[in-house]
Amino acid sequence: MSSIQIPRGTQDILPGESEKWQWVEQIAKDICSAYQYKEIRTPIFEHTELFQRGVGDSTDIVQKEMYTFKDRGDRSITLRPEGTASVVRSFVSHKMHGLPDQPVKLYYLGPMFRYERPQAGRFRQFVQFGVEALGSDDPAIDAEVISLAMNIYKKAGLKNIKLVINSLGDPESRTAYREALVNHFKDGIHEFCTDCQNRLEKNPLRILDCKKDRDHSLMKSAPSILDFLNENSSNYFRMVQNYLTQLDIPFEVDPNLVRGLDYYNHTAFEIMSNAEGFGAITTLCGGGRYNGLVEDLGGPETSGIGFAFSIERLLAAIEAEGLDIEFTKPLDCYFIVLGEKAKEKVVKVLQDIRLNGISAEMDYLNRKMKAQMKAANRLQAKQVVIVGDEELDRGVAVLKNMESGEQKEVEWNKLFDEIKSVM
Amino acid sequence: MSSIQIPRGTQDILPGESEKWQWVEQIAKDICSAYQYKEIRTPIFEHTELFQRGVGDSTDIVQKEMYTFKDRGDRSITLRPEGTASVVRSFVSHKMHGLPDQPVKLYYLGPMFRYERPQAGRFRQFVQFGVEALGSDDPAIDAEVISLAMNIYKKAGLKNIKLVINSLGDPESRTAYREALVNHFKDGIHEFCTDCQNRLEKNPLRILDCKKDRDHSLMKSAPSILDFLNENSSNYFRMVQNYLTQLDIPFEVDPNLVRGLDYYNHTAFEIMSNAEGFGAITTLCGGGRYNGLVEDLGGPETSGIGFAFSIERLLAAIEAEGLDIEFTKPLDCYFIVLGEKAKEKVVKVLQDIRLNGISAEMDYLNRKMKAQMKAANRLQAKQVVIVGDEELDRGVAVLKNMESGEQKEVEWNKLFDEIKSVM
Repeated sequence: MSSIQIPRGTQDILPGESEKWQWVEQIAKDICSAYQYKEIRTPIFEHTELFQRGVGDSTDIVQKEMYTFKDRGDRSITLRPEGTASVVRSFVSHKMHGLPDQPVKLYYLGPMFRYERPQAGRFRQFVQFGVEALGSDDPAIDAEVISLAMNIYKKAGLKNIKLVINSLGDPESRTAYREALVNHFKDGIHEFCTDCQNRLEKNPLRILDCKKDRDHSLMKSAPSILDFLNENSSNYFRMVQNYLTQLDIPFEVDPNLVRGLDYYNHTAFEIMSNAEGFGAITTLCGGGRYNGLVEDLGGPETSGIGFAFSIERLLAAIEAEGLDIEFTKPLDCYFIVLGEKAKEKVVKVLQDIRLNGISAEMDYLNRKMKAQMKAANRLQAKQVVIVGDEELDRGVAVLKNMESGEQKEVEWNKLFDEIKSVM
Repeated sequence: MSSIQIPRGTQDILPGESEKWQWVEQIAKDICSAYQYKEIRTPIFEHTELFQRGVGDSTDIVQKEMYTFKDRGDRSITLRPEGTASVVRSFVSHKMHGLPDQPVKLYYLGPMFRYERPQAGRFRQFVQFGVEALGSDDPAIDAEVISLAMNIYKKAGLKNIKLVINSLGDPESRTAYREALVNHFKDGIHEFCTDCQNRLEKNPLRILDCKKDRDHSLMKSAPSILDFLNENSSNYFRMVQNYLTQLDIPFEVDPNLVRGLDYYNHTAFEIMSNAEGFGAITTLCGGGRYNGLVEDLGGPETSGIGFAFSIERLLAAIEAEGLDIEFTKPLDCYFIVLGEKAKEKVVKVLQDIRLNGISAEMDYLNRKMKAQMKAANRLQAKQVVIVGDEELDRGVAVLKNMESGEQKEVEWNKLFDEIKSVM
C-alpha cells in the first residue's frame, strides 16, 4: 500500500527533537510558576465569531489565514489562530473578574493554526506560549509581563536579544494620532500597496507595519505616536520604563512599533533576536496591553496585558546562537539479557528500578551479547547489568560501571540496591 | 456586546483544575522517561485517508464521529480522533524501522476529537496519553507496555483498578474464529441492532462489543476466541501472562474483550476502575497489539503494540476514589507594598527571588495593608515581606514567617538571602 503524507505546512516532532521542546517549555512553565501565572487550557477550535471580534475582522489572520469549517451541527468553527481571544472568552464566560485574586494571571501553551504559505521555519500548525494578566492597569504589571518574557529567553541561554517598546496611548491619544496619520498618508496613499490603501480608513496605524512599503518616503516622515500621547498616557509609559530600569532590563523605544492586531493600547513590545545565524533581525515575541478587549467580547471593563511567542522561533534562536545544550539525558542502566529464563527473571527488577525514577532498558529482539552491548553504548548507559543462564544458576548478575569500567558480580537480591546506590 | 460561548462538547481547564492535569501528566511523562519511551508530537489534523485506512472505514469513529473538512487548498483534512494512526504514519514516513534502536518506543499526549453526543465526562475534545512500541514481537514488550499503563495508575494513587486481557490471535486464528462467529450469529442476526447486522460480514468480532445487544442469549453462548488460537498464538498469550505474573501484576482473562478498532491481533487489554464513585465498572485504558498496521499504512512488515487513555477519565477515577492529593503548591513569598516608591524598590528583589525558583507575588491594585495581607493568606504564603515608605527610609523591610508567626526587620541588602534561606 502507498504511504500517506503529513499535511502540508505541518511537522512531526520526533525523539531527539521533542526533548528540546520539553526543555524550553519546562523553562517557561517554571518561570510562570515562580511568577504565579497559572495554566489555562482552552479548546483547539472556537466559534468563528470569536476571532472575527477578538482578533479583528480587518486583520490578515481573519481575512486570509484561518482554518474555518462547518461542524456536523452546521456551526462555523475555526482552529484557533492565536491564544488571547480564547483566554479572554474564557475569562468572560467564567466571570473571572469576580475572583478574589486580581489581576488574574494566566499562561497557555499549545498549537495554533494559520493557513500561510509554508516557508523555512514557518508552519501552518505552530506552538505558542503566552501569558495574559487581566484586571490591573498598574504599569508595574506591564513591566512584570515583559520581564517574564525576557527571563524565559535568558534562562534558555540566549544572549543576542533586545527588547523594543512603544506606547500606543489610550483611546484619546490614539484617535488624535490616527487622524494625523490619515492626513499624512492620504495624498500619497495611491503609491502604496492595496492592503495599505484599505488600511488608511480602517486602521492607519497598521500602515506603519507594512513590509512592502517600508521604504516609501512617507513612512520615514510619518508623525510619531509619542508626540500624540496625552498626559495620562505618557505618564503611564514613563512609569513602565522606570520599572524596566529598576529591573535591569535594557530596552529601546521604537515609535513605529505598532503590532499587527487591532486591540492594543498603551504598552506594546517585541523581543528580537539579532543572532548572526538568523542573517537579519527576527522578532521572537510580541505583546502589549489590550484594555477594552474584555468588553469587546462581552465582559465588564477590564484591563489586560499579555504576550505570545512561538516555541519554533525560540528553538530557532537557540540554534542560531549555536548554544550547546544537553537536551537528552543518558540512560541510567541497560540490562543485557541472554536467554528466555534470564529475561523472565529480569523484568521484575527492571520494573522496580524504573519505578524508582531510574531510567532502564533491556533487549526485546533476542540479540546476541555483542549487539546488546552496542545498544547500551549507543544509549550512553551509565551502568550495564549482564544476566545469562550461567549467572542465573548461581543467583548473581554482573554489574558493570561504564564510566569507570569496573565490573563485579552482585547477588540477585542485592542487585536493586546496588544499582540504586550508584545513581 | 454579547459574550461568545465555548463550542459545545468542549471545556476550558482553569487554574485550580489545570494543576491536576499537570500532576497526572507529569506522572505519565516521568514513568515514560524511566521506561525509555520518548515523546512524539504529530499534527492535530491529518489527511482524512489516514484514519479511513488506519482506524478502519467501518468503525463508528470514521463513519460518524470525525471532524472532517476541506482546507483552503481543497484537501480533505480531519482532526485526529485517536493517536495510533498518526504515530504509525510518522513511523513510516520517517523510516523509523531503520533506526538502530528497536523497538522504537514512543509516547504522545494531546487533544483528540470525536463528534459524539456530549454527556457527563464525555467531550468532543479530550486529551489522550498513549504509548506505542514498534518493531518487536517479544511477549516481554507486551508485558512492559501493560505494566507501564498499570504503573501510571498506581503512581496516581488508584486502588480500585483491574487489568483484563485477552488474545485475538494471529491472522490464521482470527480467520477461524471469525468464521465460527458468523456461523453462530447468522441465523439470529435479525434480532440484533442494525449496527450488528452490518458487522456480521465486515467484522463479526465487534458484535461482542455491542452495548445494545449485550444481553441477547446468542451473546452468552458465543464461541470463545481462546478455543480458536493456534499453537503459536496460544504460546504467545501464555508468555505474556507469565511475564505479567513475574511483574506482580494481577489480571483476568476475558475472551469477550475485543476492542473497538479493526487492527488488533494477539494481546488486547483494558484497565478498568471499579471505584464506588463511578457506580459501574468503567474502562480507563485500552490497548493491544497491531501487527500489520504499519504495512497497511505503507511501511514494511513491523510489529506494534500500544495503548491509550484519556486524562479526563484518569482524573475522574481519582475523584471517584476520593483520593486526597495536594495538587497546588502554596506560595513561597508575598510582598506587601505600600506606596509607589516601595513598589519601585521591590520589583527587583521580587524578580531575583523568582529567578531562583521561589514563587513570589506582590500587589498590583494599590490595595491597603489589610487587603494585601488577606491576599497573602488566601495564597497560603509561607513568608510575607512588608515594605512601606517608613521602612524604605530606614533601609529595611519586615519579614514575617507565616507558619511560626515570627516577625523581624531585615536590612534591605540582606533581604534576598534571608528569604532564600527559609525556602
